Amino acid sequence: MKTPLVEPVKTDLMEIAQQRLDSLTKPKGSLGRLEEFARRLVSMGGEKFPPLPGKKAIFTFAGDHGVVDEGVSLYPREVTAQMVYNFLNGGAGINVLARHAGSDVIVIDIGVDHDFAEAPGLMMRKVLRGTRNMRKEPAMEREDAERCIAVGMDLSREYALQGYALFGTGDMGIGNTTASSAIAAAVTGTSVSEVTGRGTGITDEGLAHKVRVIEEAIALNKPDPRDPVDILAKVGGTEIGGIAGLILGAAAQRIPVVVDGFISTAGALIAWSMEPSVKDYIFAAHSSVEIGHKVMLDAMGLRPILDLDLRLGEGTGAALAMIMIEAGLKIYLEMATFDEAGVSTEAP
Amino acid sequence: MKTPLVEPVKTDLMEIAQQRLDSLTKPKGSLGRLEEFARRLVSMGGEKFPPLPGKKAIFTFAGDHGVVDEGVSLYPREVTAQMVYNFLNGGAGINVLARHAGSDVIVIDIGVDHDFAEAPGLMMRKVLRGTRNMRKEPAMEREDAERCIAVGMDLSREYALQGYALFGTGDMGIGNTTASSAIAAAVTGTSVSEVTGRGTGITDEGLAHKVRVIEEAIALNKPDPRDPVDILAKVGGTEIGGIAGLILGAAAQRIPVVVDGFISTAGALIAWSMEPSVKDYIFAAHSSVEIGHKVMLDAMGLRPILDLDLRLGEGTGAALAMIMIEAGLKIYLEMATFDEAGVSTEAP
Repeated sequence: MKTPLVEPVKTDLMEIAQQRLDSLTKPKGSLGRLEEFARRLVSMGGEKFPPLPGKKAIFTFAGDHGVVDEGVSLYPREVTAQMVYNFLNGGAGINVLARHAGSDVIVIDIGVDHDFAEAPGLMMRKVLRGTRNMRKEPAMEREDAERCIAVGMDLSREYALQGYALFGTGDMGIGNTTASSAIAAAVTGTSVSEVTGRGTGITDEGLAHKVRVIEEAIALNKPDPRDPVDILAKVGGTEIGGIAGLILGAAAQRIPVVVDGFISTAGALIAWSMEPSVKDYIFAAHSSVEIGHKVMLDAMGLRPILDLDLRLGEGTGAALAMIMIEAGLKIYLEMATFDEAGVSTEAP
Repeated sequence: MKTPLVEPVKTDLMEIAQQRLDSLTKPKGSLGRLEEFARRLVSMGGEKFPPLPGKKAIFTFAGDHGVVDEGVSLYPREVTAQMVYNFLNGGAGINVLARHAGSDVIVIDIGVDHDFAEAPGLMMRKVLRGTRNMRKEPAMEREDAERCIAVGMDLSREYALQGYALFGTGDMGIGNTTASSAIAAAVTGTSVSEVTGRGTGITDEGLAHKVRVIEEAIALNKPDPRDPVDILAKVGGTEIGGIAGLILGAAAQRIPVVVDGFISTAGALIAWSMEPSVKDYIFAAHSSVEIGHKVMLDAMGLRPILDLDLRLGEGTGAALAMIMIEAGLKIYLEMATFDEAGVSTEAP
């Protein structure tokens, strides 16, 4: 498939932004990463004074996983669809935290094994009724993986047209830490045991089994490490493809995108393998408890914003990180300069 | 002076809160520290469903430091008063971030070497016109240190009566990282060089000089490690005393208090040395760039919430952390339970 054109950010604007940050009433650099967030937003947007993002959206992609048949999760696969209803009713973690952040939640059925009726806030973009069991065959056909990516790219365009200026990614899919660990191993070449964690909370025995299932899936399907779409198709998932597409589309439109935790970062890893410049538009929301998360962030050179021991997914970390990113931009736009405030600068 | 009575929190309520957290539609424990914040708030408030804190206040205590005569800071002492005017005009970092967090900013002149006219948002509680140079004599008399603590305790009562339910601490005082490092060394017994950093951004040479000044101040004044008021008087500062008092008063009234960075934590260390139970009511906002910060947090057994390379003070980290703490309480109060949402719990 054709990867969209992503322009690198304007690094000269970063210097201009830092000059302004240094003119504000605080010791130079003393607002640390808030200053970094402001610099990066300026460089992405391409103007010296970008507006605050009035409309923000977290895209929570939902899909089922055939590998759940192998007993890799604590929860039955029906929970994916049940949680979609919970999202639509406003009762899930992502609903609470997105409201807190002033962000909308867009729920996408991209691969749930359930027929939903139309509902406000639900985007019906089903590519598959769940993937196949990757321990026995490829999770998807290559064309399906490409369709998942296209769903995400299309959504990024639709919401950019509606004036949304800050995106977040999220996921729901029982079994999807298994697919994400497989992607992390396949892309980075790290051993499966070093990128596989407990997901929703499985035991030591369950974890050893999960590692074996992923190892066997990789051995059987032989995903090509140089071909991210092949990896997504053979050992990935529909929601991970949607997230990858959303990130590609956001970057192509110069819209900052806050990547949530472990699953979303697997999607980012696919997008980055297709087009490394997407990294310029990504904020890594938080450091997940899942051990494979750091491996993927390090591979891309991303530093997470928060470290709150989160491992829920859905976009919950992205919602919280959005609040910090916006704080950085407010500092940049709203603080007084030394001149304006009549405050002495450094002693002579 | 008489330390107020601080009741330890109700740990049985923590278990009740965790039961509710485990009934919400998420894997157990998957919201990590947000769950911890909720549990702790419940245990402090003493009721199963505490309300969201409608009114929040960050108390930014301002005071000058005689030790500035030794050339320990990059900025001239006039900046303390100039920054107070900046706070009152809404142009400082704390104003921007407190607005972002929905918190008021209360500015207290507790020891600035300047005469302010009355102004909205300014509390006139001057104890001293700046401390003396601790390298040559004790920074304050013991009675002055006690008066500073009393100022903070009184403010905590006044604002509790007005219905404020979440407090944050902040500071402004050119030279106050020097006083805070001295307190850290005196209370914890750590060597001065291990708790002294660059403050507003001094050079290597400036840092070596700052360490010597603090070592000489401690050698001259011999603060008693078992007497926190003696330490505050001899090598501390007025704003640090105010912060200590605010924390003592908050804890006595069972009000959670978010302690900002390095200077505020020096205040917390004084309060904790006077009454260890205050720890139950403290949230450590963030991990400061100042190296002595971790030493003090470790001494009290506090784990910071954010790590954003901040070193501004004023209460800026407290404002950001308030947003995370409130997120935890919203999760607890607003998420649907498995029963309410019709979501299957763990597979049999």
